[in-house]
Amino acid sequence: MSNETWGAIATWRMAHNGVKKASQILQSKGSAGDAVEELIKMVEAYPYYKSVGYGGLPNENGVVEMDAAFMDGDTLAQGAVAGIHNVFHAVSVARALSHEHYNSFRVGEGATQYAQLNGFEMRNMLTERAKKRWEKRRAEIADAKVKPYDGHDTVGAITLTPTGSMAAATSTSGLFMKRPGRVGDSPLSGSGFYVDSEIGGAAATGLGEDIMKGCLSYEIVRLMGTDRTPQQACDEAVYPFIEKLQRRYGQAGEFSLIAMDHAGHWGVATNVEFTFSVATTHQAPVILMAHPGPNQTTTIEPITQEWLDAYEKRIKAPIE
Amino acid sequence: MSNETWGAIATWRMAHNGVKKASQILQSKGSAGDAVEELIKMVEAYPYYKSVGYGGLPNENGVVEMDAAFMDGDTLAQGAVAGIHNVFHAVSVARALSHEHYNSFRVGEGATQYAQLNGFEMRNMLTERAKKRWEKRRAEIADAKVKPYDGHDTVGAITLTPTGSMAAATSTSGLFMKRPGRVGDSPLSGSGFYVDSEIGGAAATGLGEDIMKGCLSYEIVRLMGTDRTPQQACDEAVYPFIEKLQRRYGQAGEFSLIAMDHAGHWGVATNVEFTFSVATTHQAPVILMAHPGPNQTTTIEPITQEWLDAYEKRIKAPIE
Repeated sequence: MSNETWGAIATWRMAHNGVKKASQILQSKGSAGDAVEELIKMVEAYPYYKSVGYGGLPNENGVVEMDAAFMDGDTLAQGAVAGIHNVFHAVSVARALSHEHYNSFRVGEGATQYAQLNGFEMRNMLTERAKKRWEKRRAEIADAKVKPYDGHDTVGAITLTPTGSMAAATSTSGLFMKRPGRVGDSPLSGSGFYVDSEIGGAAATGLGEDIMKGCLSYEIVRLMGTDRTPQQACDEAVYPFIEKLQRRYGQAGEFSLIAMDHAGHWGVATNVEFTFSVATTHQAPVILMAHPGPNQTTTIEPITQEWLDAYEKRIKAPIE
Repeated sequence: MSNETWGAIATWRMAHNGVKKASQILQSKGSAGDAVEELIKMVEAYPYYKSVGYGGLPNENGVVEMDAAFMDGDTLAQGAVAGIHNVFHAVSVARALSHEHYNSFRVGEGATQYAQLNGFEMRNMLTERAKKRWEKRRAEIADAKVKPYDGHDTVGAITLTPTGSMAAATSTSGLFMKRPGRVGDSPLSGSGFYVDSEIGGAAATGLGEDIMKGCLSYEIVRLMGTDRTPQQACDEAVYPFIEKLQRRYGQAGEFSLIAMDHAGHWGVATNVEFTFSVATTHQAPVILMAHPGPNQTTTIEPITQEWLDAYEKRIKAPIE
C-alpha cells in the first residue's frame, strides 16, 4: 500500500495548527495514530474553541460532556467515549480504548472512571468564558430570545502515512445546551468517522442526529472503494442524502464531511459555509473554505485574510 | 409502496412470542412502530431471557445497564439509549426519543433521567436469578476458570405493514460482566440496526465491538437497494467482512444479522448457530435455525422439538 504520499485533513479552521503538527509528525515517520491524536489534542487544548475540549460549551446543567472516537485504518480497531467529563483529552481515552477487544466504547460515568483509573489527566473543562456563555444563553432562553441549540462544531480528522497507514479521530463537546447524556454522531462508527487504510477515511461535523440517519462517513469510504475520487464520493453521499432527509424527514440539519483516500487525494461536501484544513506531500498546510455548489457539487476556495481576522476577533470577543 | 404483504423478523428463539404478537398487530392494521415496540417489550419483560431487559445480566458492578434503539423506516427518525438503568422498557424510551429532532440519543444518567421525567416505568431490573449468575461468575473469574465475557444476545427486529411502512428496534443488557458504561452495536445506527421503508431493514446481534467495525446493518440495507435479495445482501455483507476482520484485526467475534425487504422477503447470515423467528403474510410464525453454509452462504433449517425442549430446560435450570 506504500505510495510515499502523506496527508492530513481536518474539519474547521480551528484544526489548522493541529494539521500543521500532524504534518510534521507524518514527515518524521510518525504513525497515522500519533498524527491524528496530536492533531485533535491541539484543538482540545485551545481554550478559545468553544465546541471541543477545554473551553467547550456545557450541557444545559453547566457540565462539559464530551464525545470522542479513534479508529485505526489498518486493523479497523475502534475506541470511543460519549458523555465523558472532567477529562482533558477525550481523544486519548478513545485511542487507549481502541486497544481493547471488549469494552472499547464507554459512556457516562463508566467512561470517566476508565479515564481516572488509567491515569489520564483530569481537569475541570468549564472555563470562565464558557460559563459566561452558558449563563448568557440561559438568560436568553428564559427570555425566549433564542432557541437553545446551535453550534456543534466537531473536530474530525484523517491522517495518512507515506507507508499507507491511515487513522481517523473526532472530538466534541457536542450541542451547546444539550440535554445531559445527549450523544451525536462523533463517537459513532460509520456516522462520525470511518477509515480503512486500503481505501480511505471520512469524518463528519454538524447536527449528529441527522448525520447518523445516513451513516455518511461509512458511505463516503465505501464509495471511495468503488473508483470514486474523494470529492465525487463526498458529493455523491452527501447531497442526495440531504434531499432524501428533506423529503422523508421534512428537514435536514447543517452538516459537513471531509474525506481522504489512501493516495492522499481529498474531498469535502457541505450544506453550509464550511472551513477545513489540509496538508499533503503536494500541498503545504492550508485553510480552505467550502460551500455547496451547483448541481450537487462543492465549491472550494482559498480563505481570505479578512475572514481569518474576523474569526480571530470573534472567538476572543468579550462575552457580554 | 403498498404491496399488501406484512412481515416481522427478529433475532433468537426468545423473540418468537414477540413475533407472534407483532403479527397480530400488523394483521389488525397496527403500525410498524407499534408492532416492533410490542415485539421487543415481550422479550424485555420475560425474566428468563438473560440478555435483554428484566432478568438481563448485569455489568461487573452488578448493575443491569441497557442499550436500545428504535428507527422509523418512513422518516428515518431514530431514538436510542445506552447505559440506561432501572427502566422496565428501554425500547419504549428509545421510541419516545425518536420523536425529538435534537437530543434523540441519550446515555447514562441523562438517559435514565429522561425516562424518569417522562413517566416511564422504573424497576429494579436485577432479578434474584440474574444476581445469582453474577455472583457465580464473579467467583469463577476469581478462580480464573472462565473469561468474563460471553453472552451478548440482543433482540433486534424489523417489521413491515401491508401499506409498506417499516420499523426496526433493538434491546439488550449487553455483554455479561461488561465494564460500566460499555456500549455495543445495538443502539448505534447502521451497526445494530437500520431501516428504510423504500428498501428494507436489518438488525444485528453478537459482539458489538466487531459489528460496529463494519456498519453491517447499513451495508445490508444498502445492498438490498441494489437488487440483491435480503439473503444475498446478508451473505454478501457478512461473510466477506468476517474474512476481512480475521485478516486485518486478527480475529472476529460471533455475530448474526437479520434482514427483511419492503416486499416481506427476508434473509439472515451468521458465523455461529443462530435461531430466529419470522412471520409474513405467506409464512405463519416459525422459529428457524441458521448456520454458516458452504461458500459464503447460510444454511437455514427448521428448529427441532428436541432443541426447543433443551432450550426451555436450560433457561429455567437452577443456578448452582
